[in-house]
Amino acid sequence: MEEIRRITDKIIKFRDERDWKQFHNHKDMALSLVLEAAEVLEHFQWKSQNEVEEHGASFKNEIAEELADVAMYLFELADNLGINLSEAIENKLEKNAKKYPVEKARGKHIKYNKL
Amino acid sequence: MEEIRRITDKIIKFRDERDWKQFHNHKDMALSLVLEAAEVLEHFQWKSQNEVEEHGASFKNEIAEELADVAMYLFELADNLGINLSEAIENKLEKNAKKYPVEKARGKHIKYNKL
Amino acid sequence: MEEIRRITDKIIKFRDERDWKQFHNHKDMALSLVLEAAEVLEHFQWKSQNEVEEHGASFKNEIAEELADVAMYLFELADNLGINLSEAIENKLEKNAKKYPVEKARGKHIKYNKL
Amino acid sequence: MEEIRRITDKIIKFRDERDWKQFHNHKDMALSLVLEAAEVLEHFQWKSQNEVEEHGASFKNEIAEELADVAMYLFELADNLGINLSEAIENKLEKNAKKYPVEKARGKHIKYNKL
Repeated sequence: MEEIRRITDKIIKFRDERDWKQFHNHKDMALSLVLEAAEVLEHFQWKSQNEVEEHGASFKNEIAEELADVAMYLFELADNLGINLSEAIENKLEKNAKKYPVEKARGKHIKYNKL
Repeated sequence: MEEIRRITDKIIKFRDERDWKQFHNHKDMALSLVLEAAEVLEHFQWKSQNEVEEHGASFKNEIAEELADVAMYLFELADNLGINLSEAIENKLEKNAKKYPVEKARGKHIKYNKL
Repeated sequence: MEEIRRITDKIIKFRDERDWKQFHNHKDMALSLVLEAAEVLEHFQWKSQNEVEEHGASFKNEIAEELADVAMYLFELADNLGINLSEAIENKLEKNAKKYPVEKARGKHIKYNKL
Repeated sequence: MEEIRRITDKIIKFRDERDWKQFHNHKDMALSLVLEAAEVLEHFQWKSQNEVEEHGASFKNEIAEELADVAMYLFELADNLGINLSEAIENKLEKNAKKYPVEKARGKHIKYNKL
């Protein structure tokens, strides 16, 4: 079995053992995804470029936990919606490759519609 | 090679072909993770429970794209920080299992410190 | 002096006494605005409609503190950018009145471009 | 009448003319506050310190609109919850003054519990 499916099954098992499906409607799942992403971002608040680098190294374990929280909501929400996340990423990468052709996008952080 | 590693390699390749590493500091990556998660959430804004379910089904492809965006920032940020996301999730699931014992947490949406 | 100006002056005084202007670039201010808004939202995570109402009443003081945090970043950021917030709201209300004419928008939570 | 009250009354009038109170539960209001704050933040995504300054000046009107959106949800949510925002800010400033004494906090961007 593929890795994301295998991990998602563990997350679902954890949830179902606690009878939490009743709370995991798409809206609260999406809301929780934002809240966990915000906890990742909080690590870098007020920090200069150098401090960001340094903090990323020193607090690797703490940030790993926050990223895991994001991943768990992401994998479960995708599954609840019947979305194959792996396929969705492949499709989006292909779409982005068209929106951001290498020769036009190289070295620029500009939205595709302004390239 | 495991699935997340394989997908992450594609994301990195996409980024490096465009010379975008220079913009992908941890702070902007975390900030972008929040912005993409917010785009997922926007799908469910103002919607009642029934409308949320219905929208999730009707806009599956659109939401899949937003989830893919979250996943791409998540996988790359983890990689930039030297974090093995798969391991991080396993560790967090174990930790959560202790914080939320089945018999105490079943059917409740309460923070572990208030159980 | 008008109320928002008067409050903003206090916020600026608080900041300058601590020599924090150096950290309050627009990016970190906007980032902090998001993080504080997320703390407001966290109050309502996983809660049903009834629980949301109840929680809003029982935790009024705690939520007031979070809203104050949002307001403080909002007022200061507007000021840093040379924006008159009061005027900006008046302008936006006028613009919204055109985007959402009463007869078309009544009782609907739909984006103006889909009305 | 004080300014925030006066503006809030206009926002409430706008809402009630459209019969939107039914959608403006605290959870969706808080969620919308986050989404609008995210739109402010998006203005500064991927931008260097210099670009942030420059963008703040060039896109003052666009950012003013986003800040107005944040303000409108903030003022209405406070009102819906029976919170006097002006008082809440005064209280929070006093509390922060104790958490961040000038002599300890000057020139540092550190959480009060680590000062």
